[in-house]
Amino acid sequence: MRAIDIQTGFTKHAEGSVLISFGDTRVLVTASVEEKVPPFLRGKGEGWVTAEYSMLPRATHTRGSREAAKGKQSGRTQEIQRLIGRSLRAVVDMKKLGERQIVLDCDVLQADGGTRTASISGAWVALRLAVDKLMAEGKIKEDPITGRVAAISCGICQGTPVLDLDYIEDSAADADANFVLIEGGKIAEAQATAEGATYDEEGLLRLLRLARIGCDSIFAAQAKAVGR
Amino acid sequence: MRAIDIQTGFTKHAEGSVLISFGDTRVLVTASVEEKVPPFLRGKGEGWVTAEYSMLPRATHTRGSREAAKGKQSGRTQEIQRLIGRSLRAVVDMKKLGERQIVLDCDVLQADGGTRTASISGAWVALRLAVDKLMAEGKIKEDPITGRVAAISCGICQGTPVLDLDYIEDSAADADANFVLIEGGKIAEAQATAEGATYDEEGLLRLLRLARIGCDSIFAAQAKAVGR
Amino acid sequence: MRAIDIQTGFTKHAEGSVLISFGDTRVLVTASVEEKVPPFLRGKGEGWVTAEYSMLPRATHTRGSREAAKGKQSGRTQEIQRLIGRSLRAVVDMKKLGERQIVLDCDVLQADGGTRTASISGAWVALRLAVDKLMAEGKIKEDPITGRVAAISCGICQGTPVLDLDYIEDSAADADANFVLIEGGKIAEAQATAEGATYDEEGLLRLLRLARIGCDSIFAAQAKAVGR
Amino acid sequence: MRAIDIQTGFTKHAEGSVLISFGDTRVLVTASVEEKVPPFLRGKGEGWVTAEYSMLPRATHTRGSREAAKGKQSGRTQEIQRLIGRSLRAVVDMKKLGERQIVLDCDVLQADGGTRTASISGAWVALRLAVDKLMAEGKIKEDPITGRVAAISCGICQGTPVLDLDYIEDSAADADANFVLIEGGKIAEAQATAEGATYDEEGLLRLLRLARIGCDSIFAAQAKAVGR
Amino acid sequence: MRAIDIQTGFTKHAEGSVLISFGDTRVLVTASVEEKVPPFLRGKGEGWVTAEYSMLPRATHTRGSREAAKGKQSGRTQEIQRLIGRSLRAVVDMKKLGERQIVLDCDVLQADGGTRTASISGAWVALRLAVDKLMAEGKIKEDPITGRVAAISCGICQGTPVLDLDYIEDSAADADANFVLIEGGKIAEAQATAEGATYDEEGLLRLLRLARIGCDSIFAAQAKAVGR
Amino acid sequence: MRAIDIQTGFTKHAEGSVLISFGDTRVLVTASVEEKVPPFLRGKGEGWVTAEYSMLPRATHTRGSREAAKGKQSGRTQEIQRLIGRSLRAVVDMKKLGERQIVLDCDVLQADGGTRTASISGAWVALRLAVDKLMAEGKIKEDPITGRVAAISCGICQGTPVLDLDYIEDSAADADANFVLIEGGKIAEAQATAEGATYDEEGLLRLLRLARIGCDSIFAAQAKAVGR
Repeated sequence: MRAIDIQTGFTKHAEGSVLISFGDTRVLVTASVEEKVPPFLRGKGEGWVTAEYSMLPRATHTRGSREAAKGKQSGRTQEIQRLIGRSLRAVVDMKKLGERQIVLDCDVLQADGGTRTASISGAWVALRLAVDKLMAEGKIKEDPITGRVAAISCGICQGTPVLDLDYIEDSAADADANFVLIEGGKIAEAQATAEGATYDEEGLLRLLRLARIGCDSIFAAQAKAVGR
Repeated sequence: MRAIDIQTGFTKHAEGSVLISFGDTRVLVTASVEEKVPPFLRGKGEGWVTAEYSMLPRATHTRGSREAAKGKQSGRTQEIQRLIGRSLRAVVDMKKLGERQIVLDCDVLQADGGTRTASISGAWVALRLAVDKLMAEGKIKEDPITGRVAAISCGICQGTPVLDLDYIEDSAADADANFVLIEGGKIAEAQATAEGATYDEEGLLRLLRLARIGCDSIFAAQAKAVGR
Repeated sequence: MRAIDIQTGFTKHAEGSVLISFGDTRVLVTASVEEKVPPFLRGKGEGWVTAEYSMLPRATHTRGSREAAKGKQSGRTQEIQRLIGRSLRAVVDMKKLGERQIVLDCDVLQADGGTRTASISGAWVALRLAVDKLMAEGKIKEDPITGRVAAISCGICQGTPVLDLDYIEDSAADADANFVLIEGGKIAEAQATAEGATYDEEGLLRLLRLARIGCDSIFAAQAKAVGR
Repeated sequence: MRAIDIQTGFTKHAEGSVLISFGDTRVLVTASVEEKVPPFLRGKGEGWVTAEYSMLPRATHTRGSREAAKGKQSGRTQEIQRLIGRSLRAVVDMKKLGERQIVLDCDVLQADGGTRTASISGAWVALRLAVDKLMAEGKIKEDPITGRVAAISCGICQGTPVLDLDYIEDSAADADANFVLIEGGKIAEAQATAEGATYDEEGLLRLLRLARIGCDSIFAAQAKAVGR
Repeated sequence: MRAIDIQTGFTKHAEGSVLISFGDTRVLVTASVEEKVPPFLRGKGEGWVTAEYSMLPRATHTRGSREAAKGKQSGRTQEIQRLIGRSLRAVVDMKKLGERQIVLDCDVLQADGGTRTASISGAWVALRLAVDKLMAEGKIKEDPITGRVAAISCGICQGTPVLDLDYIEDSAADADANFVLIEGGKIAEAQATAEGATYDEEGLLRLLRLARIGCDSIFAAQAKAVGR
Repeated sequence: MRAIDIQTGFTKHAEGSVLISFGDTRVLVTASVEEKVPPFLRGKGEGWVTAEYSMLPRATHTRGSREAAKGKQSGRTQEIQRLIGRSLRAVVDMKKLGERQIVLDCDVLQADGGTRTASISGAWVALRLAVDKLMAEGKIKEDPITGRVAAISCGICQGTPVLDLDYIEDSAADADANFVLIEGGKIAEAQATAEGATYDEEGLLRLLRLARIGCDSIFAAQAKAVGR
């Protein structure tokens, strides 16, 4: 597993801000608190947590075109940002959050595999910081965050399970999985895709167990970053 | 598990055409053969299989807005069509297919849960029919399809695992999973999402085993539909 | 003239649902009742009837690109859906409908000429069913539908007038007309376009008279479909 | 019928340029010759004639939003520009035009009813001027224009047929028709729509005969404008 | 400097309407009064002045594609319309205007260099006419217009400063500047861009002094056009 | 003037990469070399330099919406990226660059006024690094960069000229100018806009002289960053 680094307060305006690195993958995550909710929640006394994801055009080996210039987000981008939002919502009690929205912006400054898992893991820290701020200001009485959430990729490369794949490993993997785990053992989301080869039940379990090991390291890094 | 029905030849123009029903969910799938490939494959002697997905505006309980009128496909639509394409590619040998593309259009006429799994299961039949036609015409020498692929949803509703969730069950499920399985036991894709509650390793395995039972029924229905 | 078939209740969610066939042309039409009106009608106590039209990508001989994927509706699509809406509004008393909107979605499952005329003819049945439902529920007191409306194409092929052109006839026609007629003899809309050759007043009248014959068959089929 | 005025050479860059007025309706039409054809015609030795239509935002009583700012053309705009193109193509021999395209841009500077009919009538003059220029330069040997085409609106207002409706008459009309006629008596396109009331065969014929009278005046104005 | 011509009342619907010519450059400017303001100003008792700019496709030597058809405005278009709006707002007291918006539509009918400066200079006249109308109707008590604003381009061609560049001069210029000046000597906006060669402080001053001469002519033409 | 900091090699994939800070404004600039040119330059043996600009949604005090999600770039974004590209091209000899393109991506991580001037100043360093790499690889023989370019904002706040305005100063400024200067004294671009008050010739000169002082500091920082 690659070195994990979480630097809080990377930018000054956001209610929560984190630069998270999984090896050479670096994602800037900000949490923005908005005192309004999406239309389908108005007047219900509940909050919402959502995410947006983007890669800078030259985060990758060769420059990709800018989505804002093309005028639309790719399917990959939308799939990832939906996953990030869902993962964070799995550990938030929306009633305790109150009628406000927290938007997690995950912008990949440099990519080397695992950008979605770094985004989820960093987003939890940014969210934690933003909620701490809301609680310190007295806007929220009870902590709406029910636990930690982290994510890690793992795959099978030439028959061997590998944790936290970098770009080269990811390109060569026969199976590619992303697990979003909640501290304590529960699964928030499991996605495992066969690439070259398919895998079986045993393979899925081995990947899941590997992911648990990886997430434990991330939970520790998250705890250190938020100071508890 | 709901009744599965596969009606081949539902429309006349497509190289393969299927109306598949999982209970009240009905999807029209057509396979279109195009003698060209996407730019990234040109001149490599390999083929491609891709999919597009859409719901008719009134396939659902209340009318949804038409994506063509809004001018963009939702994240959900893109996520699903990417999954369908990936699932079918898991059982196709692109070299044997030759430099041509097969597009699987999955249009949901009526929705009652499981539209993506019905789409994948029906798309395999449409693909099989289109490839049979190409082989009968002598355009393909060796069968590029390496096996059957089917998909089924399953979930945990009030603690009980349920197979092939309809809309009401899906809305109430604590966890919602979709498995794409290959005949013989391998997994092409597993996606399991916690909704209200999260789940653990044991829960994931129970869902997977349930999915195997469901997919066996689908494999049988596919075999009957294509006559072998 | 080709065989006309109208199958009601083809899908279960919509307030009115019809699968109409003109020969090999098959269109699924649903009528959706919405208890709101477009902004320009709000608070006026009047209703609205509108239509959307689309062809499934492989409804035709060769696959067309999906409008939702391209991000815009073609001029042809917009022209047709405007015509369908206008045709239906010609037989609806908007005051009696009350402040609600009925949307007619016409999705062409298979195309072989005459998709817009089949859409209009089928949309009347779907509208009739939806209004019957509103009346049965007591939401509407007086019937807002003032008569039947049907549409048929006709053209001049090598000097001979032809009714209800299929795709091959349509491609070869020197003139191509669509008439939207109201039971009893009135014209809601007439559109006649010269293709290869132009036509004269006599030609226009012959086409119109032919259209009357065709619409009489459709009125009969509509009556049978709605049971009166 | 309102006064018709055709001013040629209104702008200097276009191969053909016309400011046409039907009463207070004023449309600037330019014909641009491009030495290329749309993809579907490449290499066939045939030309193409097409049209684009737009209203300036404040051509009308109240300002409409600019289509370029909204990011899409309305259905009405697309319907009209398709009609203009079709009407002009009815009098052009594409083989004689040779592999080039003429684009007719119809921009409404001021609107008072009849903008599409003024556009078609003016576009013929701009096209004639552009073709004359191509012939004078020796790029075209034989005249590809087979005749004159003109268009006029007519309607039934309170039972009385009216020719060339202005905005107020158009708003009040029970039926609204547009005829595109070719000098000599043939019809290129007829479109008649019932608004408040429907109309019958006799009404359609009366409108057509009225349109003939109007188009004769336009043909005379076109002849004078192009000097023959 | 090229001949300046300002023709008021060119179209009849707009509250202010001007056809302004700088040589062969001709721009139709309309001022539309709307009794509402953009969201960020609602309820503040202040007005707003904004502009939209467009070139007709064949205003130029070769036909450009229509922005409405392409579905977006170019960067150049947006840059120019932002400049026009800013320039006009420099001479309007928004409190005196009251909670209403004036939209200046600048549509270039023919282009020969200087379309943005002609647009600004003409827009002031259209704005003046629209405000005069509001004052005559008693809707505005005190004149919100604090002075005249005009704009002119100038450049350095082969070492020689040139005023009001036409298209050929503009293409050949080493430096290209646009000045927006307020009668009495103040500068609203200065933009000077090096093209082939760069320029120095002395060059900038010479261009500015030249612009003053040009704007004095425009101020005189504006005064004549509005009758004072 | 605020502290300037230029950190090279901030990301690893790009041919040139810089994190530039003007006080709290921080922009990540990457230079990407592409061995192709835009269509209008193909086959001419000349290169091109262009730029794209974006602000991360939470670079600012309150979160702005993501342009990729909205589906279009704002006028402000387009105006700025056009300015950056123009400024860099002022110091590049396109023949010496050869038929390749360098794209400068300027992504604002944190904004506190002066994002466009920091972008230009940082883009020169990223460009220099990318060109150095091309020269070291022997792909370019002669240095195509003809000099240094830097940019700084300045304004008049309550009568006092201020250099390198931060967000609060910028909001309060009566006039707001951006100067793009070339080492040695020439001006590449000058843009000065009156906000509350207008300014005169003397004011413009004072701003320009102030800008010279600021750019001298930036030139020194650029020299230090690239090691010469």
